[in-house]
Amino acid sequence: MTDQREITILTGDRPTGKLHLGHYIGSLVNRVALQEKYKQFIIIADVQALTDNWEHPEKLKKNILDVALDYLAVGIDPNKSTIFIQSMIPQIAELTMFYLNLVTVARLKRNPTVKNEIQQKGFGQTLPAGFFVYPVSQAADITIVKGNLVPVGEDQLPMIEQTNEIVRSFNRIYNCDVLVEAEALIPKFARLPGIDGQAKMGKSLGNAIYLSDPIDVLSEKVMSMYTDPGHLRVQDPGKVEGNVVFTYLDVFAPDSAEVAELKAHYQRGGLGDVKLKRRLIDILNTFLEPIRERRKQLEQDPEYVMNIIYEGTQKTLAVAENTMKEVRETMKLNYFHQ
Amino acid sequence: MTDQREITILTGDRPTGKLHLGHYIGSLVNRVALQEKYKQFIIIADVQALTDNWEHPEKLKKNILDVALDYLAVGIDPNKSTIFIQSMIPQIAELTMFYLNLVTVARLKRNPTVKNEIQQKGFGQTLPAGFFVYPVSQAADITIVKGNLVPVGEDQLPMIEQTNEIVRSFNRIYNCDVLVEAEALIPKFARLPGIDGQAKMGKSLGNAIYLSDPIDVLSEKVMSMYTDPGHLRVQDPGKVEGNVVFTYLDVFAPDSAEVAELKAHYQRGGLGDVKLKRRLIDILNTFLEPIRERRKQLEQDPEYVMNIIYEGTQKTLAVAENTMKEVRETMKLNYFHQ
Repeated sequence: MTDQREITILTGDRPTGKLHLGHYIGSLVNRVALQEKYKQFIIIADVQALTDNWEHPEKLKKNILDVALDYLAVGIDPNKSTIFIQSMIPQIAELTMFYLNLVTVARLKRNPTVKNEIQQKGFGQTLPAGFFVYPVSQAADITIVKGNLVPVGEDQLPMIEQTNEIVRSFNRIYNCDVLVEAEALIPKFARLPGIDGQAKMGKSLGNAIYLSDPIDVLSEKVMSMYTDPGHLRVQDPGKVEGNVVFTYLDVFAPDSAEVAELKAHYQRGGLGDVKLKRRLIDILNTFLEPIRERRKQLEQDPEYVMNIIYEGTQKTLAVAENTMKEVRETMKLNYFHQ
Repeated sequence: MTDQREITILTGDRPTGKLHLGHYIGSLVNRVALQEKYKQFIIIADVQALTDNWEHPEKLKKNILDVALDYLAVGIDPNKSTIFIQSMIPQIAELTMFYLNLVTVARLKRNPTVKNEIQQKGFGQTLPAGFFVYPVSQAADITIVKGNLVPVGEDQLPMIEQTNEIVRSFNRIYNCDVLVEAEALIPKFARLPGIDGQAKMGKSLGNAIYLSDPIDVLSEKVMSMYTDPGHLRVQDPGKVEGNVVFTYLDVFAPDSAEVAELKAHYQRGGLGDVKLKRRLIDILNTFLEPIRERRKQLEQDPEYVMNIIYEGTQKTLAVAENTMKEVRETMKLNYFHQ
């Protein structure tokens, strides 16, 4: 499929606040690499953020700026990636309305990702229709820019499946090839555990290290990291498996031989948690310092940052209008132009 | 509510084909009257038409022209009423996406109108999400033009209720009075039976007399009308109740004294169905002839008709953009303008 045409990536985030190391490892680092090879659109999904937080849209503006600052700080290059705001692309809403006719209520109920999230959020009888149908809206996000490669975690695979079902239905019913199927790109290292050892790092879980954390906050968080609860005295042997400090060292330490040594030392006893954590603080700080500095500079000029998003949104609008033109022509809804 | 502000009507039709006498009595005649007193928007709801006919969008263009021809033929005046096409107002889709967050799936399931329609159409497990959420889209149709008076049949009252629930939720959650509640305007004579005696006249029921039916088709349809199945011989007494010919005479005969006489004659015996039907044909033809003539003239110049819709759509776009601007400001989604 992707031999004949350019590869277009659609990726992005709900603007729920500052980004953390989990975002970096799970997606940001890949985006920085992918922008060198592919056309990359990065959606700031504010409309989707409303589906479970509709009562507080006033947070979105600040969150959008925070997300954009983090993007630029880690090296997402607006000349290579197009960053845009979902709510400013009306074609996404229009396309969603058309797609809703191609998906049954029964099918939406079966979506495992949504099923899980509904349970996690405890919606029950209060499940908002907007949340229920958001996989359809996501299909519109992807297809409006003709995204054919979508970086996602394993748990998001059903969303790509739903998108491709819609693409196939649309192309079959309207006898065309206007829409393109999307392939999932699953990152090798998809998930960084929280500092408390929980599988997922998250804002609401309070277990995240943010890209913008100053050194004292970073230190405090690493010092509170979950290690081996049985490792009480320095001289005791400690466990490496499930020890969050080592998980982070595996990911962030530039020298893997050093990590191997630290592991061996820890396992035979004699390496204290505090010393180990100090080393991780050093390594993380060396990694985060330039990001933090770049972010601070950008914070001085929020207009510059917002302008980058504005320009990206304008660029996306042109692409979206073009896709919608094709969709309307295919559906014969172009009543005034042949 | 309506003392302080101008009254704005939102009314319209799904473009499913030519309009019939049922449409005339149920809504068109009222629209012609209402446009004299109020600001009136008439939506040609093509996106909604897709919710139960998504496989055949190619019919929409012709249907839109047919509906518009009927509108103009019966006296809807484009200088007084604004006719517009739903799919050309992207703000309706955008507003729908916001509203979906304010309505639960459970609430949509309880909507009696939709419940009935789902049963009638036999959707079952194949119920498309687009059909399921169409009351939310309808709320967007009404509120995008700040419609505060909506002519509907009794069976459509739950749709107005749903709209007003959304309006109240929105104004409460976002602490504003941007949206206005709508009042239902229930026409006195809401429903004309089909020629077969069924309560409702409908295209799919094959029991409709169209505004554009030529005289021979009209005659044939009236001649096949359901009367009193017990009225076998001219000299027998016949029943007036449930006799469709008399229902139509009640509605369309200009002289009610004549109808009273015909009824008395029929009831005591001596008035044959054929004679009675011939009288109805005369009356209906006198009524339909100028409409038919005007329609024929307009058919010569479809561009003129489409241009009227185009102009109305442009006018509606300006109104819709203004409402969306207020909505975005209220929700603080105006990221680039204060």
